[in-house]
Amino acid sequence: MARYDFASDNTAGAAPEALDALVQANSGFTSGYGTDAVTAEAADLVRALLDSDAEVRFVASGTASNAISLAALCRPFEAVVAHEHAHVCTDETGAPGLFGHGLGLIGLKGASGRIDPAALAQALEAPDVSYRQSPAALSLTNATEYGTVYSEAEILALTRIARGKGLPVHLDGARLANAAASGFEVKQLKTLGVDILVVGGTKAGMPPSEAVVLFDKALARRFDARLKQAGQLPSKGRFLSAPWIGMLKSGAWLERARHANAMASRLAGLMPFKVRHPVQANAVFVGMDDAALERLRATGWFVYRFTDGTVRFMCSWATTPEAVDQIGEALKQVA
Amino acid sequence: MARYDFASDNTAGAAPEALDALVQANSGFTSGYGTDAVTAEAADLVRALLDSDAEVRFVASGTASNAISLAALCRPFEAVVAHEHAHVCTDETGAPGLFGHGLGLIGLKGASGRIDPAALAQALEAPDVSYRQSPAALSLTNATEYGTVYSEAEILALTRIARGKGLPVHLDGARLANAAASGFEVKQLKTLGVDILVVGGTKAGMPPSEAVVLFDKALARRFDARLKQAGQLPSKGRFLSAPWIGMLKSGAWLERARHANAMASRLAGLMPFKVRHPVQANAVFVGMDDAALERLRATGWFVYRFTDGTVRFMCSWATTPEAVDQIGEALKQVA
Amino acid sequence: MARYDFASDNTAGAAPEALDALVQANSGFTSGYGTDAVTAEAADLVRALLDSDAEVRFVASGTASNAISLAALCRPFEAVVAHEHAHVCTDETGAPGLFGHGLGLIGLKGASGRIDPAALAQALEAPDVSYRQSPAALSLTNATEYGTVYSEAEILALTRIARGKGLPVHLDGARLANAAASGFEVKQLKTLGVDILVVGGTKAGMPPSEAVVLFDKALARRFDARLKQAGQLPSKGRFLSAPWIGMLKSGAWLERARHANAMASRLAGLMPFKVRHPVQANAVFVGMDDAALERLRATGWFVYRFTDGTVRFMCSWATTPEAVDQIGEALKQVA
Amino acid sequence: MARYDFASDNTAGAAPEALDALVQANSGFTSGYGTDAVTAEAADLVRALLDSDAEVRFVASGTASNAISLAALCRPFEAVVAHEHAHVCTDETGAPGLFGHGLGLIGLKGASGRIDPAALAQALEAPDVSYRQSPAALSLTNATEYGTVYSEAEILALTRIARGKGLPVHLDGARLANAAASGFEVKQLKTLGVDILVVGGTKAGMPPSEAVVLFDKALARRFDARLKQAGQLPSKGRFLSAPWIGMLKSGAWLERARHANAMASRLAGLMPFKVRHPVQANAVFVGMDDAALERLRATGWFVYRFTDGTVRFMCSWATTPEAVDQIGEALKQVA
Repeated sequence: MARYDFASDNTAGAAPEALDALVQANSGFTSGYGTDAVTAEAADLVRALLDSDAEVRFVASGTASNAISLAALCRPFEAVVAHEHAHVCTDETGAPGLFGHGLGLIGLKGASGRIDPAALAQALEAPDVSYRQSPAALSLTNATEYGTVYSEAEILALTRIARGKGLPVHLDGARLANAAASGFEVKQLKTLGVDILVVGGTKAGMPPSEAVVLFDKALARRFDARLKQAGQLPSKGRFLSAPWIGMLKSGAWLERARHANAMASRLAGLMPFKVRHPVQANAVFVGMDDAALERLRATGWFVYRFTDGTVRFMCSWATTPEAVDQIGEALKQVA
Repeated sequence: MARYDFASDNTAGAAPEALDALVQANSGFTSGYGTDAVTAEAADLVRALLDSDAEVRFVASGTASNAISLAALCRPFEAVVAHEHAHVCTDETGAPGLFGHGLGLIGLKGASGRIDPAALAQALEAPDVSYRQSPAALSLTNATEYGTVYSEAEILALTRIARGKGLPVHLDGARLANAAASGFEVKQLKTLGVDILVVGGTKAGMPPSEAVVLFDKALARRFDARLKQAGQLPSKGRFLSAPWIGMLKSGAWLERARHANAMASRLAGLMPFKVRHPVQANAVFVGMDDAALERLRATGWFVYRFTDGTVRFMCSWATTPEAVDQIGEALKQVA
Repeated sequence: MARYDFASDNTAGAAPEALDALVQANSGFTSGYGTDAVTAEAADLVRALLDSDAEVRFVASGTASNAISLAALCRPFEAVVAHEHAHVCTDETGAPGLFGHGLGLIGLKGASGRIDPAALAQALEAPDVSYRQSPAALSLTNATEYGTVYSEAEILALTRIARGKGLPVHLDGARLANAAASGFEVKQLKTLGVDILVVGGTKAGMPPSEAVVLFDKALARRFDARLKQAGQLPSKGRFLSAPWIGMLKSGAWLERARHANAMASRLAGLMPFKVRHPVQANAVFVGMDDAALERLRATGWFVYRFTDGTVRFMCSWATTPEAVDQIGEALKQVA
Repeated sequence: MARYDFASDNTAGAAPEALDALVQANSGFTSGYGTDAVTAEAADLVRALLDSDAEVRFVASGTASNAISLAALCRPFEAVVAHEHAHVCTDETGAPGLFGHGLGLIGLKGASGRIDPAALAQALEAPDVSYRQSPAALSLTNATEYGTVYSEAEILALTRIARGKGLPVHLDGARLANAAASGFEVKQLKTLGVDILVVGGTKAGMPPSEAVVLFDKALARRFDARLKQAGQLPSKGRFLSAPWIGMLKSGAWLERARHANAMASRLAGLMPFKVRHPVQANAVFVGMDDAALERLRATGWFVYRFTDGTVRFMCSWATTPEAVDQIGEALKQVA
């Protein structure tokens, strides 16, 4: 049977801190649809994490979190500007189009998953014409799809370009914990020109849960109805929020990401194939031809060939040093 | 602080059988998006429950399950025929319209939540005209919103009318366990003319999870892409499926519903207000004026006034006889 | 062959003033998509008609005009409040739901097509809850579906209630010319709290064309892209706008409606069946049983049984006194 | 004032044959929504043109015709495969996404607007995965956006690849008349594996009108409701259909296109800039730098820089030899 340790950072289960909190929150009766005390406490903890009084909601899917956020920022005859390999562009089955009612996507170039500011500026220079979907929001990702991390200044440079043209900003933080573990100051996010932030829980070691953070609180009006219509306001809201209490109170959200990042560094150190993107978070991307990939898979390790043609190795809270060393051995054999 | 024991059957947490299975399924790495062994086992158990080889998917939201199912059966310029007080009509914020891209709803009359077959037949007699959304699917609910239960013959009578006009059928089984506990034979469902069934997990005592059952297996083509785009194909699929293993292997899915139904009967027996709908599942609906409802809420018990003007008391797997007796006392005082 | 003179006010062709202007505008080359001089002149004339500097666009369909307008005012998880028999509720195949991505409709009561202000106030009293689509815009119709006409004060009374709750207002003026001919001052509309107005051209005697008037000019941003995506920004825009020049410059828009209204009055005077709604515009609604309707149709005159059970007779710019007298004779025979 | 003769083939008005027929069809009362005798006759003529018993509807917008057709063939979590520069991809403001509820577009390479069969085959080889929108329909364009014309055999080669994978086919024939004038046999279309064809009227010299032809007649079920909801079933249907009678009975649909093609050939013969695509229909595309384009525009002639960077000159039924010679002179001056 294949081993999925490095296939993605969502192949692991939940970290004990998350699961224990879920079990603990299970007792007793509560009001529904996110109006319960568990959810209120978790939202407070997210606010403390970000040092912000933003509105916070918990959503069971990253794809839905992103798509609903973009739908809140744009209209159907407009478009979102994002890196051409951003998750919203390549891995979400057109969810922004479904929730955004035909909302378009404009893909930008940029090395290793980071948008080139010049490419952004150029895209926003194009004149509004009626026959094209013109840019209405910028979507960023940190850490990026290629395991790189924007600095605070790099984020700000991009959001300034966007806001200068009147565009609000969405930040897909499915791996924000990994960015934070890499040194990115999440408490600064409130000053970086982001309107909606999705803080990843799932890849950080929780059961499926993401925190949607509305820095622009005007967006909160009827947001619960927006979620409910979208099938993202579960009656038993505590099952989405409780894991956040466990992860944030204990510091595990950050510590577990630090571990994942360390495992990626360890793997990069052992890697006999050429590493193609800077290893700044929990991923290692390498050049590997099909024959070598086949040989690797034949040893039992399943990993993906990625959008840019490289082969991706993801680490998570649950990745063990032993597993890293084992796949390192396998890689040596197939190199 | 208010007590929510009877506010809904989703105010309770998860039953131990469900939660234990979730914790147990947590270990190790698995492939994602519902392709894991835990999900496969859970799907097998749902098939065994229904004695059918149907396709099964697990979805975190009843609203999404229903809306996505209806979108799979209808086109935007068509309509779903349902009881006027069905959950899809009154409690899902127009989700069928969002996922169905403007899909319409036609509400039918019928006592205590059960569609009157004559009303259905009449609705389907209306000629197709271009300026109205004509019926394209029938949506049933069992147990109904009013705590009544269709018999197998009653379901069949309605689906025959629908199928006679070429309409496929969706069954919202958010409380199918309660119907089963009331004597409804779920293994017969495959013979009753239903194309898509949503089997409720959440109200049956699980963390948020519903099983979408495609009796019409032709609907399964690209259904995972449908779910993914809709934000309902979580990477860590086992968190949705594992609870089903716990509930179905142990028999708790049915036994816990039997308890909930018994609690409703107990409450009905104590009820000083006039019971307005037959108590066949886990709900008691009574006539109660605003003043009395206020007095009841002042005693700490929160319950809802429902769509038809009655006041609703829901029981769940977690309702205790003591709580029933306590609210019975409170009711006596305010009557 | 059936005679359709009274079946609707859209069974006639275009008035000579409209058609002549269209033919005249046909020569030469122009820029496309509504940027041409013909369209600019027509927009100026609409602005002059309304004594307003509003933004004006021309759209080939009343259904699209209404649905696109409502989509501009509301979000999918919200609802439009309208008379229960308004065209958007009963005759547009759920177009607001398609263009509004699931946008809901809340139907209000009111005699003869006019919304009862108390019903409106009550609908807007309902608290925002996440599981229902809460009101986000008011849609009015003048002249109404039942041939009655709101006064300026009546419009204002309704829009004040709406605006007091933060709701913008749409006015479906498919028969605004008939309202104007009945005394309604269209130049006052800019003071009556309306954000988007659809001025009917089709029923006023033009080829298919409606003028969408954005009193709230903030709505004009990217409105052409909105129209283009919706398939309502034809390249040869002059074919939609030129008829307005013919009708407005000549005064025919109002005069032709005056004639239509006069024909309805004449018909009402001859009517042997009980007239059920005040005849204030170009329609006569009567009580008539199925047998009588059958007999009438057997004489060759086709008319519709309407939403409220009455039988409707519509007059238009093209209705002749002779036709009125002829159908009057037929009616006498079948009464 | 700028001259738009070569800016597009939609900057001209309507040809006399079309307009005369419209004026002629104007008299008398008819039933609405395309049920009238004029529309029936026009549909018969389209069927005769194509030697097919297909279902025919008339729609006022090419964008809407295409988007509605694609929505009829695909589901929101799927994608349309088309040339990367097809009108549906680049010039319709994401209309397929609006009408298709998030429907995706996959752009294929191919010289001069014609899809490379190998590129198509490769796109259809990609395995179905849940996180991407998989191909569900092929969209072709003839004549293409670059003024080239597919032969019958070339169309068939592409549709065979598509149908071999179960994909139905849409053909955007906005310039089908120009293809026909270039030798393409439209009567063969019924044998070429096309399910929905949009026959262009607007660019062929009519007021805004396209004929949607359903070769797959199963698609016709409730198609009028589909159109009505989409705002594309005007009450006064004869205004869309009558021009077809004028153009088809007289042969003008083909003859006028022959003239447009001839004008493009004449222009190509005079062209001092390098022609970049084969001139097979009514367009000439040339290499021209910005400075030269500016100089040309300064002479009063407005033309567009196109998607591929060339500058486009379109001819239409109304283009005169004199205008060709005049712009030829201007081009010589600025070259």
